[in-house]
Amino acid sequence: MACSALLLAATVLGGFALPAPQAASQDARADSALIAELVAANRILGQQGIFDGFGHVSVRHGRDPNRYLLSRSLAPELVTADDIIELDLASRALNAAGRTLYLERFIHGAIYNARPDVNAIVHSHSPALVPFSVSSVPLRPVSHTAGFIADGVPVFDIRKASGITDMLVSDAERALRLAETLGPQPAALMRGHGVVVVGASLPIAVGRSIYLELNAKHQSQAIALGGTVTYLDPQEARRVIAAGENGGYQRAWELWKQNVAAK
Amino acid sequence: MACSALLLAATVLGGFALPAPQAASQDARADSALIAELVAANRILGQQGIFDGFGHVSVRHGRDPNRYLLSRSLAPELVTADDIIELDLASRALNAAGRTLYLERFIHGAIYNARPDVNAIVHSHSPALVPFSVSSVPLRPVSHTAGFIADGVPVFDIRKASGITDMLVSDAERALRLAETLGPQPAALMRGHGVVVVGASLPIAVGRSIYLELNAKHQSQAIALGGTVTYLDPQEARRVIAAGENGGYQRAWELWKQNVAAK
Amino acid sequence: MACSALLLAATVLGGFALPAPQAASQDARADSALIAELVAANRILGQQGIFDGFGHVSVRHGRDPNRYLLSRSLAPELVTADDIIELDLASRALNAAGRTLYLERFIHGAIYNARPDVNAIVHSHSPALVPFSVSSVPLRPVSHTAGFIADGVPVFDIRKASGITDMLVSDAERALRLAETLGPQPAALMRGHGVVVVGASLPIAVGRSIYLELNAKHQSQAIALGGTVTYLDPQEARRVIAAGENGGYQRAWELWKQNVAAK
Amino acid sequence: MACSALLLAATVLGGFALPAPQAASQDARADSALIAELVAANRILGQQGIFDGFGHVSVRHGRDPNRYLLSRSLAPELVTADDIIELDLASRALNAAGRTLYLERFIHGAIYNARPDVNAIVHSHSPALVPFSVSSVPLRPVSHTAGFIADGVPVFDIRKASGITDMLVSDAERALRLAETLGPQPAALMRGHGVVVVGASLPIAVGRSIYLELNAKHQSQAIALGGTVTYLDPQEARRVIAAGENGGYQRAWELWKQNVAAK
Repeated sequence: MACSALLLAATVLGGFALPAPQAASQDARADSALIAELVAANRILGQQGIFDGFGHVSVRHGRDPNRYLLSRSLAPELVTADDIIELDLASRALNAAGRTLYLERFIHGAIYNARPDVNAIVHSHSPALVPFSVSSVPLRPVSHTAGFIADGVPVFDIRKASGITDMLVSDAERALRLAETLGPQPAALMRGHGVVVVGASLPIAVGRSIYLELNAKHQSQAIALGGTVTYLDPQEARRVIAAGENGGYQRAWELWKQNVAAK
Repeated sequence: MACSALLLAATVLGGFALPAPQAASQDARADSALIAELVAANRILGQQGIFDGFGHVSVRHGRDPNRYLLSRSLAPELVTADDIIELDLASRALNAAGRTLYLERFIHGAIYNARPDVNAIVHSHSPALVPFSVSSVPLRPVSHTAGFIADGVPVFDIRKASGITDMLVSDAERALRLAETLGPQPAALMRGHGVVVVGASLPIAVGRSIYLELNAKHQSQAIALGGTVTYLDPQEARRVIAAGENGGYQRAWELWKQNVAAK
Repeated sequence: MACSALLLAATVLGGFALPAPQAASQDARADSALIAELVAANRILGQQGIFDGFGHVSVRHGRDPNRYLLSRSLAPELVTADDIIELDLASRALNAAGRTLYLERFIHGAIYNARPDVNAIVHSHSPALVPFSVSSVPLRPVSHTAGFIADGVPVFDIRKASGITDMLVSDAERALRLAETLGPQPAALMRGHGVVVVGASLPIAVGRSIYLELNAKHQSQAIALGGTVTYLDPQEARRVIAAGENGGYQRAWELWKQNVAAK
Repeated sequence: MACSALLLAATVLGGFALPAPQAASQDARADSALIAELVAANRILGQQGIFDGFGHVSVRHGRDPNRYLLSRSLAPELVTADDIIELDLASRALNAAGRTLYLERFIHGAIYNARPDVNAIVHSHSPALVPFSVSSVPLRPVSHTAGFIADGVPVFDIRKASGITDMLVSDAERALRLAETLGPQPAALMRGHGVVVVGASLPIAVGRSIYLELNAKHQSQAIALGGTVTYLDPQEARRVIAAGENGGYQRAWELWKQNVAAK
């Protein structure tokens, strides 16, 4: 039911699940709108405190599921349409024209390859999630707005996958391991690093990023009160997903877009 | 004494307790002022961090106690006068004209029906209150500005009332149960969800929302210090209410309105 | 040594310790500058998060030590020069002209009466201090910027002084008790309410308010780390005072004034 | 490997390691650019919450390694190019022209003298670091962005070095002791005071200041969760440094500069 809800959400939102056969004959205008959404996503995640100078967000190409769009290496809040580059699923740039790429772009290609249901990916150092990435206390849903983590959030420990590293998912092998840890889930914590969050559309991946950060704050504060904590029942959490998961985040998405446009 | 103080406050504030017989002959101008206050309340609660993209605030109609005003489904900070819809106490829209309604509008109708003393209702995911909604540690008044919770804040657990759900109070039955849990109190926490706060006027419901959030922060921090905590004596808390409860929030209300107007 | 340092600071800052005999012959221009400083102090404490819609700051009259200046009842961030009223040490307004007074103005008169060394007083609900006002854990200086509380911060519990009340220091008797609890100290916490902070000048009372709030955050966080905490040695703290206590806050005061002017 | 990485970063960033012989014949234009960077650093650290009204940042002179640049005594967010003064390594001003100097300027001279690899120094009361400066719990790297503290952060306790003081590093002797405590590390906490952070360039010293503060928040929150915490493996941390330490902070530096320029 969760999957069909996501597909439904993607449709409702003018999403871009799998391209229809006639898609290749469309002109480039659909891409312009998608690029504008991607630029907005970059700035929203900066303004909401999910990104600082680092982090990146990508979207699967609207007409070719084997390509995705990502900014050149740049602080997300500075990204404009001219900074967006197309990459293939091996994370090779198709039109870099000398522009520098993010070292960790491989995260995106590996997950798009493994997850046909995913059309948008956020990698961040989301501040309240980093503590959970290093703690033995698992992240669990406190509020219905985080119901999308019904089945828990796996933790990717790069040391277990790749030994002693500089902690960066900067090649295809490391990214594959991260994608394996993510499995079918909406998010994976990265130990001592941050998080990767995925969704069927940009509003969903962005919305989940924002509400997963908020859930970490809620859970930390609930634990600090010292009593027992009642987490969402997994069945409740699945109902939240089935019911459309925060309305596909559309109500908030409109606000976030307006806030970055006003800035 | 609490009740008479509230009525007094409503009067002092140019409130709108029960409509006088001649009210029906008034023209629509009183409503315009009330709608402007409701728009301000939406934006204030956004700017003060009580609302994010979600949450809603309503006000009982000034001339018909069996109707109330609520925005169409929209992020509160984006609400304008044109977005305000009239609903009856069964939460049926009277002038929606195709506009989408909040799924949880039933909260408002059920409480206005059960509580003639209530003229304004806020439903939010107030960030510091969510942890208390899931903790065995009860919310208690730390500071006199939260004296209005003299008799405690009940917790509505939708699972006890309605079994496994998507956590949304999205029908009349669930809303009735929430109203029953609220009883005569100024606020009820909603487990894993947020809070509903009521008052005799918009400034009171908004002010209580802001100071209940603040009290949650105070209490969390006081507990974290690790010593014993002295809460308000219930008699002190009742005196706070009897003395006019933070001056009916008028001093702060003027500031909040000016802040949203300046934005 | 602390006292002489304060007097020195007041002099250096163009302060206004005790009026010189020839002061009475000056025209009103000195007052205009003092009122401008008081208006700035109101706005600074709002912008710095010490005040919300409530709280007030006063200054002793520059030419008559038996009078002080305080805004009419208004949210501090909205205060302008036209809102400033003169009161005597019994906290009777001398030129209210129908304007409403703060209910708790008696705090100011009682302290100016008891403390000739004090020329400025802040009463606030400083958010990180309220938890200390209700905790058995005493506020202690963590950082040298809070060295001015070398001898601790007394806690005024209105219930011990005046029994069950509405928690407001709204008459002369309660204010006298608060002034007694304050004694010769720079600040007193008020249980379940907030704090009163005093100084030889507005920059000192404002600066102390800001750095006492910061110290409360520091101490809370240090305690939460779970190890042992090394507080300032009382002798160190007295040296901080003797050395001029954060340079009389002048460097920060210029920044704060510029920030409120720019807004 | 860490050292060579730092030198590399300094080179890449148009840094200014040791002056080349022909440097003395250059005109003053290089200094203008360096001063502009120093002004930006002052404002960035203010906007990022590392500085409040206090704190200071310096840079080693581009053409004479025995001089450094520092603002006159002024709140960092107010600093302009006209406020920058040249000092020698004994922290004597060379062109003060009557302008007041920071009391703690000796910190800078002593460290530039002891550390030829250091070209920029930040002294701040970084708010999340002060609690670690007084706690028995050591600051440790939680996230790869703080990998630069691979070998820990020493704590300078002025009482052990200089007995009972006013806590200020306001003479050459105290500064020498601080430099000794710092040793070859990128940062040293100052008990009950703050921190000193150094780097091969302004972007590095500023970036480390911001990410050390963030790491303190991460570590506090991770500890508060109550489980076990997995810190960076020292080998991982050294790899982070060897890999260029957050890209020399250039991506974030561009964002920070743009943010202060826009203000």
